Formats: sequence, structure tokens, C-alpha cells
Amino acid sequence: MGGRTLIQYIRNQNKSDVVKMLSRNVDDSNEASLVAKAIIEDVKARGDIAVNAYTKKFDGATIDDLQVSQSEIDEAMQVVSVDLKEALQEAANNIRKYHEQQGSNSYFINEKDYRLGQIVKPIANVGMYVPGGRAAYPSTVLMTAIPAKIAGVKELVMITPPKADGTIQPSLLVAAAFAGVDKIYKVGGAQGIAALTYGTETISKVAKIVGPGNSYVAAAKKIVSSVVGIDMVAGPSEIAIIADKEANPAFIAADLMSQAEHDEDAAAILLTDSEALAEAVKMELAKQVEQLSRKSIILEALSKNGAIVITNSIDEAIDITNELAPEHLEILTTNAVDVYGRIESAGAIFIGEYSPEPVGDYFAGPNHTLPTNGTAKFASPLSVTDFQKKTSLVYYSKEALEMRKDAIELIAEEEGLTAHANAISIRFKR
Amino acid sequence: MGGRTLIQYIRNQNKSDVVKMLSRNVDDSNEASLVAKAIIEDVKARGDIAVNAYTKKFDGATIDDLQVSQSEIDEAMQVVSVDLKEALQEAANNIRKYHEQQGSNSYFINEKDYRLGQIVKPIANVGMYVPGGRAAYPSTVLMTAIPAKIAGVKELVMITPPKADGTIQPSLLVAAAFAGVDKIYKVGGAQGIAALTYGTETISKVAKIVGPGNSYVAAAKKIVSSVVGIDMVAGPSEIAIIADKEANPAFIAADLMSQAEHDEDAAAILLTDSEALAEAVKMELAKQVEQLSRKSIILEALSKNGAIVITNSIDEAIDITNELAPEHLEILTTNAVDVYGRIESAGAIFIGEYSPEPVGDYFAGPNHTLPTNGTAKFASPLSVTDFQKKTSLVYYSKEALEMRKDAIELIAEEEGLTAHANAISIRFKR
Repeated sequence: MGGRTLIQYIRNQNKSDVVKMLSRNVDDSNEASLVAKAIIEDVKARGDIAVNAYTKKFDGATIDDLQVSQSEIDEAMQVVSVDLKEALQEAANNIRKYHEQQGSNSYFINEKDYRLGQIVKPIANVGMYVPGGRAAYPSTVLMTAIPAKIAGVKELVMITPPKADGTIQPSLLVAAAFAGVDKIYKVGGAQGIAALTYGTETISKVAKIVGPGNSYVAAAKKIVSSVVGIDMVAGPSEIAIIADKEANPAFIAADLMSQAEHDEDAAAILLTDSEALAEAVKMELAKQVEQLSRKSIILEALSKNGAIVITNSIDEAIDITNELAPEHLEILTTNAVDVYGRIESAGAIFIGEYSPEPVGDYFAGPNHTLPTNGTAKFASPLSVTDFQKKTSLVYYSKEALEMRKDAIELIAEEEGLTAHANAISIRFKR
Repeated sequence: MGGRTLIQYIRNQNKSDVVKMLSRNVDDSNEASLVAKAIIEDVKARGDIAVNAYTKKFDGATIDDLQVSQSEIDEAMQVVSVDLKEALQEAANNIRKYHEQQGSNSYFINEKDYRLGQIVKPIANVGMYVPGGRAAYPSTVLMTAIPAKIAGVKELVMITPPKADGTIQPSLLVAAAFAGVDKIYKVGGAQGIAALTYGTETISKVAKIVGPGNSYVAAAKKIVSSVVGIDMVAGPSEIAIIADKEANPAFIAADLMSQAEHDEDAAAILLTDSEALAEAVKMELAKQVEQLSRKSIILEALSKNGAIVITNSIDEAIDITNELAPEHLEILTTNAVDVYGRIESAGAIFIGEYSPEPVGDYFAGPNHTLPTNGTAKFASPLSVTDFQKKTSLVYYSKEALEMRKDAIELIAEEEGLTAHANAISIRFKR
């Protein structure tokens, strides 16, 4: 206590050292994996009985009806304020508008003697996990359900852990109704993932499970991933901000802390070529944090995974950012558009003084489920395509096959697969 | 011996029982995982020295230059027959033509006071694994490399285990040259996956690794999947054929065996409403297998995972197929187009008598890397999109944020994230 640094400074380091210093070791928890495995096996064997037992144990709730009833949804609609409903509805509209432009298309190639095609269909049934407990996130309901429904998922099933009194946060139910969720069940944790994977008496099994959860949920998703599809296993959240001397230190401090408040493992990094800005941000952090309700989480996160990196130039800040491939990136420089054009990897980029990251978290339209911990080098925000699947189509006429049979047999033989060659040649034997 | 059934018959069972009987338990090999883990740690620590030691141990080869030289590629071009080169070139053209229609597009939403966007970029560097050993598959080189290059991957690195004499099958090098592979290294197994993940003195690390391999390669890919992107971990291959009494039993038998020859765990399933066809196919299997060089693998696969399912109707065959979600599906019925329209889940569909599955494996154009073991319910053939990544873009003007700030703060407060609300409100404090 007292001795803890507010936020570390990094200077005069080369790119790879900076990246190494900033890299978090997000190890899979072995304990979580073992617990999740046992729960999954139990739910697979005992179904609803096991589900309800774990809900009692972990959430303290006794559940009679696993499924949320229409009257509970109607009641939530009454309870939630008009202002919040309007805000959620507007956010839903923005999210819908943004995601409607996504999705893969079917196409066909029609030639005289053959046809090929890629057929795109929605995944028939999808389960979505929505965290409960400490905080209920209606924004996550919107961000997950809306792309699924745009894709055309017929059966979209939401699961979320109940409170100890057996209820669900009303705003979650309102968001689910706005987004078109088909069914909602009161179950969370590894038991919820198991129920979606194998089905129980009440809950039908699904083909894919998406949505963020705690370490037990993440471990359970990884375990069942050979049976059902899963989205990425999200790590702790992170933000990087590239800023020059013209940027407003109060805004930067506020934005760093909006990320840090998520949890103690969140990362918040400022990259700047200005010593003066760095100092000013540090002072703003110290000042503003006193006013924030999640002060202790923020201080813990900043001291563990917060950093102010002083670079020789904005170019160097860009280079480091491309190596970090941060989940969120804010660009607060005079030439922001120029800088953004040189970013190779990031989950989402926020440009300019009036685009703080919470705009994207809740409202603007792009998805808030983003690749974390450097995975933006190869992974993407959750999108409509994550709820689609493709099938290829091949039709050859007799003439088409006859004309090409020698070439196909030649390749088959080169690969030593003579039964493949036989499947061609037998069609032209007399 | 002698007592082994050629292929099992299934009749008078309901859909879910049939699916259960046909489901293969593709367990992760724990032994492979432990071996792979040790190799990965060693390569991470010792780099090229470890790589070369494992190549000596597993492939029996002493490698001086890990990278395949231009003169080796030139020599391969001389060695491979003109006919095979032409066949591979034509296959490459077909694959290119089919895949060029794939890929996600960037888009922007430009409103008066805000801009949003999805920016699509190629993954910068990708490693592709190509099996060596028992059989070399130039078709896999084409099927993996061509979509990557269409996506725009700048550095496409191929690795493949060398033969004991330190060389690579010439047709693999020819296919790599046709497809535009940038670098080729002589290394396979878990050591190759480790080198691509962490880099060595010679091999640069990549952001994503794709391509099929043996159980050690599959285990290694799973282990490194929290560090780099991977494609699906492919299971043993499988085919389902829906056929009615009009279908040609000789063609069906040949097609079942073209799948069965892949390996002992391959599955080959005929679904038909005709007892007569079933009998005729069985006789054709027994007859044709005698002529095939991979007879023992085929017999093993057919007896383990082969089946002729007698259904009451073609409708029932379709229902079972949708539950199976097979990797390959051939439709050999009089009303094939009607049947195909009712298939919900399959990796690739082959329609009619002259579209045997090897047409798709080698030549037609669609990808031969397909979802196995029922994963076609949620997964898709390898495609250009697998080599792309997306970044979201948010720009709000001061006016845009001011107009929407109350709604955003309201949602943030509902979620208990007050620092999120602070990041908005601080911008409008005087």
C-alpha cells in the first residue's frame, strides 16, 4: 500500500521489448478447466437435475422454471425506465444498421457442362451466453443477438445466471426482446454451456455457442469446442491510445480508466511522443480516479497492466501498436486520419477527441465483441458471418467429366490414391 | 480374419439411433498432446537446432538448408511430367476462378456527423502445413495457397516434412510455385508448428497456421491456438451417399471406397430406400476392392466406419443426412436437384452420376478442406475469408457525441460502469 505505482513508464526501449513488457500471460486456468469438466459430465448425465443443483450452489437460486416466461418479460418492460428503453432501442437500431451490411453471399458458377456454387445458410440454432452476477450487460445481449438474427438463425437461445432471488436483471430481458431472442433460460456457468452442448429435458442442444463469460465459462467453451462451434475465447479487455502533444490529457485519462474499470486484468496503454502529455495524463489519472466508484479495480488494473510508453515519434507509436494489435485503439493526434491508415491490426479504431471507446461499447453500431491480447492480427470482431455456414456444390455432366478425367486421374495417381482414380475411370468403362 | 464384415447394414432404426451408431468418437490423443507440448517447448527454447534434431529423429533426414532453394524448385519443374504440370495448372485455374468470388468487403457508413466502417485486410503472414511422408498431396498445396493469395497474404510460408534423403516430392514444389507460395521450409510435425508459432533463427513467426496434418500436428495446432490463429482441426474424412433404386451400384461402390482409402478411420455411408441397390453395392464393393492398391486400408475403414443404411424413404435419408452433416455428400437420385435443396448441413454436395467426390478433391474448384465429423452444422469449407481479418472504425464528431451522450451514459450506468460514463461526461464539462 502507498508504494504501488499508479502506472508504469516505459521509455527508450525497442519495439519488441516494449511489446514483451506489455504482453500479458493469459494462462488457461487449470483449476477452472477441471471444475468445468466435472460439471459438464454431470449435466450430460443428469440433465436438468444437475443444472438446477449447480444453480443453487453457485448462484444461490432455486429455479422452478428454467425458461423465462412471457409474463416475466412483460414485467421487465414495465420496470425498465422509458429513457433506458429508448437508449437501448436506439443502440439496437444502430447495431442493426451497421451489421446489415455484413454476411457472406451464395454464388454460382454456371458453365455449359458444369455448375459450381457456394451456398450460404444461417446456423440453425445458436446459444448465447450473457454474464450475470456482478454486472448485467444489456449491451452484450444486443451485440450478440442482433447479428445472429440478421444472419437468419431460427432458434436463438440466451442463457444467463439468475440472481439469488431467481430473477434476471430486467434490462437484459428488455434487450433480448428488442433483439429478437427466441428463448431465455436461467442458467449460467459451465452448467449452462453443458446444457447448450448436450441438451437437457428442458434445453435443446445448439450447433454453436457464443458470448463472453468468466473463467469457468471460458474453460467450458474450450472443452466442448470439439462438439459445438464456439466464438473466440475472449481474454481481459484492453485499450491503446496513440496521442500527440495536442491531445487533451483529461480525455485520455478518462478513456484509459474506462477500460481499466472492467476488471483487474484489463490493460490500458498510452503511446505518446510527448513527455508533457504523459505527465499531464498521469496527474489526471490520479485526480479523476478519486471520483470513480470502481476506484480499487482501476488502480489494480493500471498498476498491473497500465503503461505510458514514451516514443521518439508517432511513427514509432504506430509500429508498436501494430505489434500489439490492441482490442481497442484510440487515435488522438492532429493527423488522425493519416495515422489510422497505417494501422495494420486492431479490433476497433476510434478516431478523434469525441469518439471515446464507450461510444463503441454501447451505441455506435460496430460490435463490441473484439479480438483481445494481440489476436487482432488474425481474428475479427463478432459479425453476421459468425452465424452463417457455407456448403460447396459441384455438378459435372458426363461430357464435363469425360473431358477432364485424364487430368483428375493423373493427380490422384500422383497422390497414390488409386481408389480416387478408380471412381473416375469406372464411369467410362464399357 | 475371415469373420470381419465387409460393411454393416443398418435398418429399422430411428434417426437419432442411426446417427448415434454412425458417430465416431474422435478423441484427442493425450499421448500426441504430451509429445507435441514437449517438442514445442524445445523449439521455443532452442530454435533451429531443435527443429533439425526432430527432423533427423522423425524424418531420418539431415537438413543443411531449412529453406527450399530456387534451384530445387527449378529442378522440380524439370522432373515433373508435362501432363501432370498441365493437370495441376488447370486445377489451379479452376480453384482460382471459384475462390475469386469469395472474401469479405470493407464498407463505410457516412452520416453527417459520424462515420463507421468495417475495414477488411489480409492476414499479413500465414503458415501452411502440407503433409509429406506416406503420400504427398499437391492438391492440398493448391487448395490452401490459392485462397490465401487471393486474400492478399503477403508472406505465405509452406512447411512440409522432407523425405529421408532431404528432398521434397517435386509435385509439391511445382504446386507451390503455381499457387504463389513465398517460402518453403523442410520441416514437419509439431516442430514445424512450433517454428511457425514462435519463429526460429531461420523461420519467421506467422499470425495464422492452416492445413491438415497427423495427430501430432493436430495436437500442436490446438496447443498453440491461444498464440496464433488456426483453421479447424480436421478429423478423419467421410462421405455419405443418398441413392435410390435407379442409381448405378458400381459407381457408388467406387465412390465409397475412394473415401475409405484415405485412412482406417475414414467413414463411408450409403443411405438408400432400395434393398436391391444395397445388395448390388455390397457385391460391387467386394469385387472392386480386389483391384485396388489400398485394399487393406479400405477394408479396415469399411468394416469400422462403413455402413449401408436402409431407409423407408428418400425423405428419411435426407433427415438422417441433415443430422450427420457429412463432410462430403453425393446425391444419386432421380430427383437430385430437389433432394439437394433440402440438405441443411454438409461440407460439399456432389450432384448426379458424373460428379464423384474426387472431382472436388482435385479439380472442380471448390475447396477440399471441409468440416468433418458433423461440424458442417456450424463450420464451412476453407475460404478466402479465412485469410482475412476485420477492424471496425468509429468516428463521432463533437455534435454527434453531444446529441447521444445521455443515452450512452444511461446504458453505462445500468451496467454499473461509471468510468465509462465519465469518459463521455468529461468531454462536456466546463
